[in-house]
Amino acid sequence: MSDLPRRIDIVEEGPREGFQIEQNPIPTARKIALIDALSQTGVKHIQTVSFVNPKRVPGMADAEAVVSGITRVPGVAYSALWFNERGLRQALAAGFLEVEGKITLQPSDAFLQSNLNRTPEQHIATIHALIKTCKTIGVPVCRASIGTAFGCNFQGDIPTETIVRLAGDILDIAAEYELTMETISLADTMAWGTPESVKRTIGAVRDKFPDVRLALHLHDTRGLGIANAYAGLEMGIDRFDSSIAGLGGCPFAKHAGAAGNVATEDLVFLCEEMGIATGIDLEAMIDAARLAESVVGHPVPGCVGKGGSLSAIRKRLSAAA
Amino acid sequence: MSDLPRRIDIVEEGPREGFQIEQNPIPTARKIALIDALSQTGVKHIQTVSFVNPKRVPGMADAEAVVSGITRVPGVAYSALWFNERGLRQALAAGFLEVEGKITLQPSDAFLQSNLNRTPEQHIATIHALIKTCKTIGVPVCRASIGTAFGCNFQGDIPTETIVRLAGDILDIAAEYELTMETISLADTMAWGTPESVKRTIGAVRDKFPDVRLALHLHDTRGLGIANAYAGLEMGIDRFDSSIAGLGGCPFAKHAGAAGNVATEDLVFLCEEMGIATGIDLEAMIDAARLAESVVGHPVPGCVGKGGSLSAIRKRLSAAA
Repeated sequence: MSDLPRRIDIVEEGPREGFQIEQNPIPTARKIALIDALSQTGVKHIQTVSFVNPKRVPGMADAEAVVSGITRVPGVAYSALWFNERGLRQALAAGFLEVEGKITLQPSDAFLQSNLNRTPEQHIATIHALIKTCKTIGVPVCRASIGTAFGCNFQGDIPTETIVRLAGDILDIAAEYELTMETISLADTMAWGTPESVKRTIGAVRDKFPDVRLALHLHDTRGLGIANAYAGLEMGIDRFDSSIAGLGGCPFAKHAGAAGNVATEDLVFLCEEMGIATGIDLEAMIDAARLAESVVGHPVPGCVGKGGSLSAIRKRLSAAA
Repeated sequence: MSDLPRRIDIVEEGPREGFQIEQNPIPTARKIALIDALSQTGVKHIQTVSFVNPKRVPGMADAEAVVSGITRVPGVAYSALWFNERGLRQALAAGFLEVEGKITLQPSDAFLQSNLNRTPEQHIATIHALIKTCKTIGVPVCRASIGTAFGCNFQGDIPTETIVRLAGDILDIAAEYELTMETISLADTMAWGTPESVKRTIGAVRDKFPDVRLALHLHDTRGLGIANAYAGLEMGIDRFDSSIAGLGGCPFAKHAGAAGNVATEDLVFLCEEMGIATGIDLEAMIDAARLAESVVGHPVPGCVGKGGSLSAIRKRLSAAA
């Protein structure tokens, strides 16, 4: 028997994922409009922008303007991505963003070398430096992530035991600084995971560290995103990242066909139809998905925005009966 | 624990599904080219065309020319869809098509009325007439299908017990004519199914009729197609319909956003990556998916055609190592 959770938390990453990768410039007001629409859906966490070098990520050049233009909805936590102290200070300067440090480990030495030009030892050193900076500034460090947890375009398949070892490394580092890790997220950054490898990896990490809450961050490049999410649900996973309309791609994968995260509206549909509460109004999320498609100006991967919900049909049928 | 099969059979329905619904005319030679490409993938069943009224389905006006132009590959069964004796005789006239009668029941009275203008009693009468015609001509009747098995845009949710009852009806009719049903296919014609309802329905039918081989025909309108296929695999289902590149739609759903079957290349990727043999060369199927996209001339839903396989990356990495 499966062990479906009764409710899940969804972290909406579409604005940040989408705006960083779209080729055509998107007006700041349109970015704000999408974030504001998402704020009305019931989703409780929205990752809005990245504070990064605008020369490297031109789509984030207006990050401060986007953040300052948001119509904040009480109960919604807005966050931003950042990778260094400069970005961290920009996030803090916004005044209302949920700012947290995150421990991110990579099982793929080839990826570290190729994309970050770091040895594993150098990468660990940056983690320690980050934690120290956060401690100095008073920023909590309570989440961790393991990238390319199911496979990597630069390294190939990732053994399950490597992920278990990295989860242990995260907890060791956390203990060293007396930090409590609220979640460890397993990221299928390059879409190598299958439902079976998702289950196997979650099972192995949980066997070793039964008290850690695991989360999933799933890219949909090979069409298994929602099936992998379902496998996670079967294992009781109750926290997922997703992206409105499936916006995004993987800037790290060096892979033209790389797709974004699983589409939020499809994930919400999956869950709500199976009786798993998301706290999200699917119809409002479908409206946001359609807005997202209009904002980026090209077809998006999400399906329920095109196909529509079932509750709309049920309502029509019951009104006619 | 799940009960994954060791191997599955895939029935490729893309040519028939796709050609019947595309708005722009496709040259006969291009249709033949796609079927010929599919013949080289290792897939063992290809549904090629429908023999139907060309006034109602203009895309099938050249069905006879398509079929006669196929370069047949030994070991591949080519079939066609037909709905009446005229179509049946056209299929037989081709000389090499696998021609079978099929018992198709519908749980939705509203659908029967709306789309076929039949009462349930009238529909059952057409089934008996079809079986008698097949017996007279010497055409086997060995498969059955239950349409809209998980929900219907005209009727709403379909109770599991209704599907169990219809499976019993099929077996009763088969017994009456001394027919052996090789498979009963559960069709999610209008994409109402979820992984949980797929499992629940399969479980209920199998509890009552443990000796019947069940198959799944899954549309992907709401993005759950591959997750539903995985749920079927977890229940040991080993026969699936699918459609190259996700070609198609649902002409019966009266639903503009309706999508085709799950994409064959995505289903093959799912299975092969989990160690379930399909007998299909994924790289050849990806080539066929790219050809299908070029034949229909617009973006298609299938993902692995864009994202690429993992075996290609593994091969490159191991050559570099």
